[in-house]
Amino acid sequence: MSRETLPFPHSSIPPLKPYLPPSSLSSSPSSSHSKPHLTLTYATSLDAALSLAPGVRTTLSGPYSKSMTHYLRTRHDAILVGCTTAIVDNPALNSRLDTITSLDQQPRPIILDPKGRWEFTEDSQVIRLAAEFKGKGPWVITTRGKEGKERGELLGRVGGKYLFLEVGENGRFKWGDVLGLLEEEGVKSVMVEGGGEVINSLLVEPENKLVDSVIVTIAPAWLGQGGVVVSPVRTEGQEQLRLKDVSWQPHGEDVVLCGRIFTQLS
Amino acid sequence: MSRETLPFPHSSIPPLKPYLPPSSLSSSPSSSHSKPHLTLTYATSLDAALSLAPGVRTTLSGPYSKSMTHYLRTRHDAILVGCTTAIVDNPALNSRLDTITSLDQQPRPIILDPKGRWEFTEDSQVIRLAAEFKGKGPWVITTRGKEGKERGELLGRVGGKYLFLEVGENGRFKWGDVLGLLEEEGVKSVMVEGGGEVINSLLVEPENKLVDSVIVTIAPAWLGQGGVVVSPVRTEGQEQLRLKDVSWQPHGEDVVLCGRIFTQLS
Repeated sequence: MSRETLPFPHSSIPPLKPYLPPSSLSSSPSSSHSKPHLTLTYATSLDAALSLAPGVRTTLSGPYSKSMTHYLRTRHDAILVGCTTAIVDNPALNSRLDTITSLDQQPRPIILDPKGRWEFTEDSQVIRLAAEFKGKGPWVITTRGKEGKERGELLGRVGGKYLFLEVGENGRFKWGDVLGLLEEEGVKSVMVEGGGEVINSLLVEPENKLVDSVIVTIAPAWLGQGGVVVSPVRTEGQEQLRLKDVSWQPHGEDVVLCGRIFTQLS
Repeated sequence: MSRETLPFPHSSIPPLKPYLPPSSLSSSPSSSHSKPHLTLTYATSLDAALSLAPGVRTTLSGPYSKSMTHYLRTRHDAILVGCTTAIVDNPALNSRLDTITSLDQQPRPIILDPKGRWEFTEDSQVIRLAAEFKGKGPWVITTRGKEGKERGELLGRVGGKYLFLEVGENGRFKWGDVLGLLEEEGVKSVMVEGGGEVINSLLVEPENKLVDSVIVTIAPAWLGQGGVVVSPVRTEGQEQLRLKDVSWQPHGEDVVLCGRIFTQLS
């Protein structure tokens, strides 16, 4: 696993800025009563696939996209993934941006794990990096009774913790509840990175109203049928889920799409 | 149905040019023994959908994309669609570019219809436009015995005809055969426009070796699960079907992606 730091060119920041939470957000008392800024970000193929199959790490986008992700992580209080991503990818969930000088600049890793499926250990990347002060201790959001006692102690040792929510009828957390909880915990901005299930659930009405901005990298490749695909379940009466305030930024072989969600009724 | 002519800005041509057949192709004797230049072009959503469902016309991309399509049609000897598209969309398959002054500049509409499913009449758009000299008479490629006698006469009256090929084991024409037939008929360049089945069949190995360039418009919208999706069936041993010589051209809310196919083995 490569551990090198990553540069991100200053000139690439202005086009992204309109889609990011204000830099001063975390210290601004005036914004203390609004829900956290939610940025949805992912990288796909032309056929909307995140990967060839669940658990298969698939290199799609180029070096710019990687650096951008690590820059974006420093611009949010927290980064959030679903437990399937935590389980199958064993992700680091920290930033390796070369300008980082202290742990304060790292985002808080947040894992949604309603059923307590993620059996993390000292060797899980996100735990190990937190132990080495290369990332913050993760917060694992689960339901009461699904937490593990020893795992709770492990989280505590690396500066993380369990947080508790109730699930809805479909066995999932409601996004409004998740953001409410994060707000109580002082999180002013969160970047949702994956995986497919988490992203798709955020694109459905009315949950998508909670998304402040979307940053999608598209690589010029087709992964073919059977991949993990970003495509929301349709809502009745809704023809298209479109982006407004759209910006397309070509970088190397990829393009970065930024925008804000609005829905167009049929 | 709007019948206005469409402008296409001169400044938009140079970025497309590397992906188009040479302008002099149709008069160049030196290229008479090579297969026709094949350009694959389509417009999709972020979730790779061409339309909400088969037969549902779905407005995805903006005015630039429409004008570009009509420009591209003038730059190819022929435009080709599958019979499902012909049946459900009743497409015009001509160019309304404002610089067109004669029928010579119109592309030849070609419809792949192995089973003779397309029951065209005088009122079908492509037939009516040919009768009005606003488009060339269509060539319908079918299998021997599937042609209709009266329909053959109708085609003849508007300057079109039936062409015959045998199908492969899967009941479809082989792309190599289709291009061979078009070459015999003097077609030097063909633009394949749809629908989903036709596009997907061209992206599969080894058929995709016949594709010279790809021009895809992507609109910043998700159509949601259940649409007509461009995503090829996977071939064993092939990890990604990628584009090379990639160019991304933002236009309005959409982006136009141009490239050439190459496959990357896993």
